[in-house]
Amino acid sequence: MSFSSTSDINSMRSAINQALSEFVKSENKYLAKIGPELDPVATAIESFLLDSGKRLRPLFAYVGLLGAGADASPEIIKAISSLELIHVCALIHDDVMDGSDTRRGSPSIHKLFEKMHTENQLVGSAPQFGISSAILIGDLALIWSAQMLHTSSIKNDQLIRTLPVYDEMRVELMAGQYLDVYEQSLGTQNVERSLKVARYKSGKYTIQRPLHFGASLAGASEELINSYTNYGIPLGEAFQLRDDLLGVFGDPSVTGKPAGDDLREGKRTALIAITMDRATNGQLKDLKSNFGDPNLTGEQVNLLQEIIISTGAASHIESMIKELTDTSLAALKHGGITPVGINLLTELAILATNRKI
Amino acid sequence: MSFSSTSDINSMRSAINQALSEFVKSENKYLAKIGPELDPVATAIESFLLDSGKRLRPLFAYVGLLGAGADASPEIIKAISSLELIHVCALIHDDVMDGSDTRRGSPSIHKLFEKMHTENQLVGSAPQFGISSAILIGDLALIWSAQMLHTSSIKNDQLIRTLPVYDEMRVELMAGQYLDVYEQSLGTQNVERSLKVARYKSGKYTIQRPLHFGASLAGASEELINSYTNYGIPLGEAFQLRDDLLGVFGDPSVTGKPAGDDLREGKRTALIAITMDRATNGQLKDLKSNFGDPNLTGEQVNLLQEIIISTGAASHIESMIKELTDTSLAALKHGGITPVGINLLTELAILATNRKI
Repeated sequence: MSFSSTSDINSMRSAINQALSEFVKSENKYLAKIGPELDPVATAIESFLLDSGKRLRPLFAYVGLLGAGADASPEIIKAISSLELIHVCALIHDDVMDGSDTRRGSPSIHKLFEKMHTENQLVGSAPQFGISSAILIGDLALIWSAQMLHTSSIKNDQLIRTLPVYDEMRVELMAGQYLDVYEQSLGTQNVERSLKVARYKSGKYTIQRPLHFGASLAGASEELINSYTNYGIPLGEAFQLRDDLLGVFGDPSVTGKPAGDDLREGKRTALIAITMDRATNGQLKDLKSNFGDPNLTGEQVNLLQEIIISTGAASHIESMIKELTDTSLAALKHGGITPVGINLLTELAILATNRKI
Repeated sequence: MSFSSTSDINSMRSAINQALSEFVKSENKYLAKIGPELDPVATAIESFLLDSGKRLRPLFAYVGLLGAGADASPEIIKAISSLELIHVCALIHDDVMDGSDTRRGSPSIHKLFEKMHTENQLVGSAPQFGISSAILIGDLALIWSAQMLHTSSIKNDQLIRTLPVYDEMRVELMAGQYLDVYEQSLGTQNVERSLKVARYKSGKYTIQRPLHFGASLAGASEELINSYTNYGIPLGEAFQLRDDLLGVFGDPSVTGKPAGDDLREGKRTALIAITMDRATNGQLKDLKSNFGDPNLTGEQVNLLQEIIISTGAASHIESMIKELTDTSLAALKHGGITPVGINLLTELAILATNRKI
């Protein structure tokens, strides 16, 4: 099997979706044996997982494996797909932490269970029931990820080799999430700090560690693993910077989120830090009185978007994305990555940084 | 090394505490390398873990191992101690779900971070910052548990044997937690349903699976594993029933929780279900108007306690505890458990069901 074009990435994604679907359906049968009370949990997690998602982490792991010269088998595909369930946990818990009502255009998990509580006229607080359910369902997704990896039937020595990478990836994710939560609570904006958050949340968790995970399945050399680091860290920062731009300028019909969502949320990103640094006093006044207001009108969103553009912050971020992506792609020239790996990593770099969702 | 008395259980607990302390200190060094922002996370998790706790799950795993005729080594002790970190996740997330301000007499993790937010005059909502931090710290504890097991240096075949038990234990915990949250949201009381929650939260998660975990490290026979099930499930129910009595009648100076905490919380337990079944109309009126009121006075708590006693529900639960414990102990006579294992399991059964905290 060889991969070298977008259609190959799509077929890799289909194989990942297939593995996830099989695993979740079988685990849901297990839950059903415990009792019908768990049916809503099973349905929610299955739809959340299977309805959409870019599968970036399993894809990077897949490509990490191919780039190290190994072939994928159904067992390997099950192992790499397990990374998506870590992400499901992160997203479900993130929505609770942010108080986000929607995810990918559908109600977030805590909103779904809040609604179930109201519709079934259960006793106690409906929002609290929603939050409790979402915390537990996120926990379950994190545990299912490990179970999917452990039951993937990859060889024992492959499993033993991947566990350190798998653990480090998860610790870095939670550390990065905390850095982000803490950053949002500070009264000041800072580009360096925003990039550090991006390094943990995206560079390491989304790209570098998944590549290492694939490499460890393949038993790759230290040199190759270093090349993946040099490719992954800058690309992750570029990925996050694209996310920041989409959070302000993204098309709601494509992102599934309201326009200017990050502006209403008051999300402190490198984009906003640069805007603040460069703003005139008048612009700063407009920014401070509107940024983070959950009830911003479309007009107010437009005003903030214009300030972000006119300070040059948006185009500065665009050029940072380009520079980081170039650095990332340059790392592919060294370190013995297979030609098919280089092609796919190039393609994924474009997919991660030049996207609309 | 042989164990046969309470002092032996205490020395096992010391060994477990030692392993936990070493692991958490080393992981905290890792967090410190990411950045000083994570210091509060490291401090909070270290105190929460090491300040107190009965270590029941590692203890049952330890005894499960000894009962199967194997000896403990430092590697094995590290592996079994990892189970405590699952429990740390469960407790931290539980406190968020219940909105509990204290745990073991100290502020719960979300309250601690809420306080830090207020004291440092951070921006945004302090309670939301507390909740977000606690969700992430609970997630981190769950991940650290796996990392502690994976890095315990037990033999690869031991690790591979324990993973299915380890995963099932964690899935059952989260399923049990959801059953509990759902049970609390129902308008009716039911003894059978309460016992089902007890079976998952205590029978399986606290006792049966930890015993199986120890047995799997030892490579035990199917027969022995079945004996552990027959001992663990009734004992877990008895353990939970004792918890229900302590939630109503526990001494605050010993439990670290306000007197009658479960009454204020309106916790639906087998004890309350039986009380409701047996109450006179007058008692039922008093129960319904007071049970679940977060502002109950000491006098109102006394009134409810008296109803629970006078209906005979409290003494009925006491006799259920006795009966379940007897069934549990009877299972020790079969299945080839070592004499030292039988002694320790007998002692743990008493510890779990005849306690004040």
